[in-house]
Amino acid sequence: MLTDGLTLTDHHCHGVVPRDLDRAGFEELLGEGATGSFDSAIGLAVRRWCAPALDLPPHVGPDAYLAHRAELGWREAAVRLLRATGTTSWYVDTGFGGGTAEFGALTDGVVREVVRLEQVAEQVIAEVGAGRTVFERIEERLRERARTAVGLKSVVAYRCGLDFPLRDRPPRAVFPEHRLADPELLGWLVGLGARIGAEFGLPLQFHTGFGDTDLRLQRADPLLLTDFLRKTAHSGLTVMLLHCWPFHRNAAYLAHAFGHVRMDIGLTVPYVGHRAQAVLAEVLELAPFRSLCYSSDGYGLPELHFLGAFWWRRGLGRLLDEWLAEDLITTADAERLAAGIAHINAEDAYRSVSAD
Amino acid sequence: MLTDGLTLTDHHCHGVVPRDLDRAGFEELLGEGATGSFDSAIGLAVRRWCAPALDLPPHVGPDAYLAHRAELGWREAAVRLLRATGTTSWYVDTGFGGGTAEFGALTDGVVREVVRLEQVAEQVIAEVGAGRTVFERIEERLRERARTAVGLKSVVAYRCGLDFPLRDRPPRAVFPEHRLADPELLGWLVGLGARIGAEFGLPLQFHTGFGDTDLRLQRADPLLLTDFLRKTAHSGLTVMLLHCWPFHRNAAYLAHAFGHVRMDIGLTVPYVGHRAQAVLAEVLELAPFRSLCYSSDGYGLPELHFLGAFWWRRGLGRLLDEWLAEDLITTADAERLAAGIAHINAEDAYRSVSAD
Amino acid sequence: MLTDGLTLTDHHCHGVVPRDLDRAGFEELLGEGATGSFDSAIGLAVRRWCAPALDLPPHVGPDAYLAHRAELGWREAAVRLLRATGTTSWYVDTGFGGGTAEFGALTDGVVREVVRLEQVAEQVIAEVGAGRTVFERIEERLRERARTAVGLKSVVAYRCGLDFPLRDRPPRAVFPEHRLADPELLGWLVGLGARIGAEFGLPLQFHTGFGDTDLRLQRADPLLLTDFLRKTAHSGLTVMLLHCWPFHRNAAYLAHAFGHVRMDIGLTVPYVGHRAQAVLAEVLELAPFRSLCYSSDGYGLPELHFLGAFWWRRGLGRLLDEWLAEDLITTADAERLAAGIAHINAEDAYRSVSAD
Repeated sequence: MLTDGLTLTDHHCHGVVPRDLDRAGFEELLGEGATGSFDSAIGLAVRRWCAPALDLPPHVGPDAYLAHRAELGWREAAVRLLRATGTTSWYVDTGFGGGTAEFGALTDGVVREVVRLEQVAEQVIAEVGAGRTVFERIEERLRERARTAVGLKSVVAYRCGLDFPLRDRPPRAVFPEHRLADPELLGWLVGLGARIGAEFGLPLQFHTGFGDTDLRLQRADPLLLTDFLRKTAHSGLTVMLLHCWPFHRNAAYLAHAFGHVRMDIGLTVPYVGHRAQAVLAEVLELAPFRSLCYSSDGYGLPELHFLGAFWWRRGLGRLLDEWLAEDLITTADAERLAAGIAHINAEDAYRSVSAD
Repeated sequence: MLTDGLTLTDHHCHGVVPRDLDRAGFEELLGEGATGSFDSAIGLAVRRWCAPALDLPPHVGPDAYLAHRAELGWREAAVRLLRATGTTSWYVDTGFGGGTAEFGALTDGVVREVVRLEQVAEQVIAEVGAGRTVFERIEERLRERARTAVGLKSVVAYRCGLDFPLRDRPPRAVFPEHRLADPELLGWLVGLGARIGAEFGLPLQFHTGFGDTDLRLQRADPLLLTDFLRKTAHSGLTVMLLHCWPFHRNAAYLAHAFGHVRMDIGLTVPYVGHRAQAVLAEVLELAPFRSLCYSSDGYGLPELHFLGAFWWRRGLGRLLDEWLAEDLITTADAERLAAGIAHINAEDAYRSVSAD
Repeated sequence: MLTDGLTLTDHHCHGVVPRDLDRAGFEELLGEGATGSFDSAIGLAVRRWCAPALDLPPHVGPDAYLAHRAELGWREAAVRLLRATGTTSWYVDTGFGGGTAEFGALTDGVVREVVRLEQVAEQVIAEVGAGRTVFERIEERLRERARTAVGLKSVVAYRCGLDFPLRDRPPRAVFPEHRLADPELLGWLVGLGARIGAEFGLPLQFHTGFGDTDLRLQRADPLLLTDFLRKTAHSGLTVMLLHCWPFHRNAAYLAHAFGHVRMDIGLTVPYVGHRAQAVLAEVLELAPFRSLCYSSDGYGLPELHFLGAFWWRRGLGRLLDEWLAEDLITTADAERLAAGIAHINAEDAYRSVSAD
């Protein structure tokens, strides 16, 4: 397939759990902290596709898979699975799942950091308290972190929803919270991230669509970002819509309507697996080809990074084979499209990196 | 196909109209009380698939179909169509379309009752009036009905929407209504149903997604149940999301995120017909296999029960054939998955029944 | 295919830009005023399918395509592309993109006018100012325009959203606006359009679903029209839901639930192209066959009118071929279904026209 030999830039992923896992621990991560289980599309895929990558027969049972994985040790399993993805650049969201150094020890690829706005703000608030200077300190810290980062990330979808209030100024007061959830503060923080992102040339990633159980999914519809997108349309900022399912057609519309919007279906691809081709087809109904980036959103289990790459290659490869068979596209254009999603669009959007 | 020989537990359906129907009456039921018509996917399916089940040639015209059906008599037609479904257990929502005795007279299968919360409350209010004791009386009646029921059902989606207020206490007053629509009362009633369901081991079914014209479909998105699902997550209650289309991917997310959520695409399957395979594929992108149950939601016309079973068998059967051809699943796992949806998952969820 | 020889009634389109276009101008129109580009499904389709219609080889590059188009001249290109659609009746929304006379000069077909409510109101307000009589004058003007129109159109989705307030009376005051956006005024205006439409036998078209960047897509979900549809269900009005993507399943539900609702997937079809078959399959899950009409929603570029017809023929033709191969429908029924969508359903809904 056209996608077979392409190297990937995984523009949004997380670290892996640095220890061996029992079945309960593995299943919890496989189900995103929810009621994980091998009894689902992704469970079948681990047994079918990850097993051979670790020298087991396809369709091996869950317990045999986990026993062999423990024999190899988590580190060896991770090294093999991450290497098999064909990824040469990893942009790691360090707000959850460990830092870049730990991840870099598992892979030969370039590893860069994506800084999570809410985590930085929570850290600063924990350090300096709720005084009036806290806002300046948050901005200082973000600017400091931005200097070495490749991108910024917001999980405001989890905290108050993507219909956060647009605020140019911080609220009058901040109340220390372990988990920042004040919409006024979040609205200001995202706006601050947008300004710093534009200034430093760092794309701002947003969690959209499905995720952990502490989400109200209807608040994570990327359409709720429309006013924010209008406001930032000509600011120089690039906005990255992550994951998107089941709102991926909505995200494709935003990428079509706004020139500064990019999107991926990371997280979605490893979960929906064999259906990645169908979901990609829905996205490509309207999304400009230059707007799509590849990511796995792998977190905790290197199986997720592996399956993200595997199903992306197979889903896009088969879709383009179909387009070629129907004479809808030339081979040259199909190759350009695939390479664009694989790494070129990310290199272009995160251009401060390639300029390093 | 793998699904050919499976017996079904139809965990949510209604009775059939106990009289012969003219074309207007038949079309009204075929269109769910809306502008029903043979001029639609389900109309084609009645002519193509129900006709041979009643010894008529495929694609017979509507008038010839109805003439033959009248000759057989509604009862004989119903007996034949219901028997052809291969269903051995029927859980009948008696809140609409007749009781279990009438339905039991048409089938050899086990027939059990699903009690509709709103109907019970309306009956009690009609009997005892709006005095302060009405709430106790509703609870008493529900407990009484729960003793012989297999499950509970709420149509709050129709009454004020699935974003009903969560209430532990009843409102100060109740105003007699033929059709209960007060959100405060409904919020308390659903909460009561959840407590009784947990206590008696009875799943609580919710109408979600499309239905009759007295629905605001946007208020029937199962995502609006998120707060309710969080509240009941560890209460022992099983929540059943019914129908779900066009929000079936949203429902699949909830089944993935919450361990106590089950779902079906009853009603959807007989209506979308040949597309059941595509809708099932969308559901199985994320839904854990154990979370899916079979239902027809047949109501009024036994053709709906028949088509629910026919298209479910064919849709899931073909989908699993595709998975097998792609080597995504083993035959043993595919058989387990199919049997789970056919009846085992329901037997597990409604376990108080199988324990009888 | 069954759809090959059918003549089309394009019940909603716009005029074309009467001048030659450079690449930036062409791409702006191709992307609906957004960040248009050849780098998308519709861009590939222009090169693949429009090129041969203008005697160029398939897959010609964008610059070569535009150079040849400029050589032909915009008028000759438009005449050829419009003729190649096989459309014999065009209902032109004159609120945007020029009038019927200009369009009629480019085609042999019958050209009729669809009058845009908001444009008429804006014109009258600009002429007579904000005095109390302005509402009577708007009604007078609409009645005058209705006498020669084939239908009415509202873009309230763009102005305040499809959840506009239902108003029988005009607001107390009107403030002159270049772009009418007052919800009270719009609610009254749509209600007025509904009354005039019912009286004159003119369907009322609504923009729903995706469109230009000045849209909040979540406010353009046709489900938000539910209360309006209930109110007008028995008024004699026909309501036309236009475009609908990505809410086309929601629109199909409304067409199923309300006998006076019709829908199309104009605009969607030229954009999603090869995926038109998949989108049509989703629509036909529930939409009654009589409820679907054909439109291109072509605007600015005759390529859009061309692709609307091309992909509609191919998408529906292939879908019906599949249904025939599966023996889901007879050839006679499939022909009737295709001819209905092609022109008969529109002739029926806009019957005041065929009665001319």
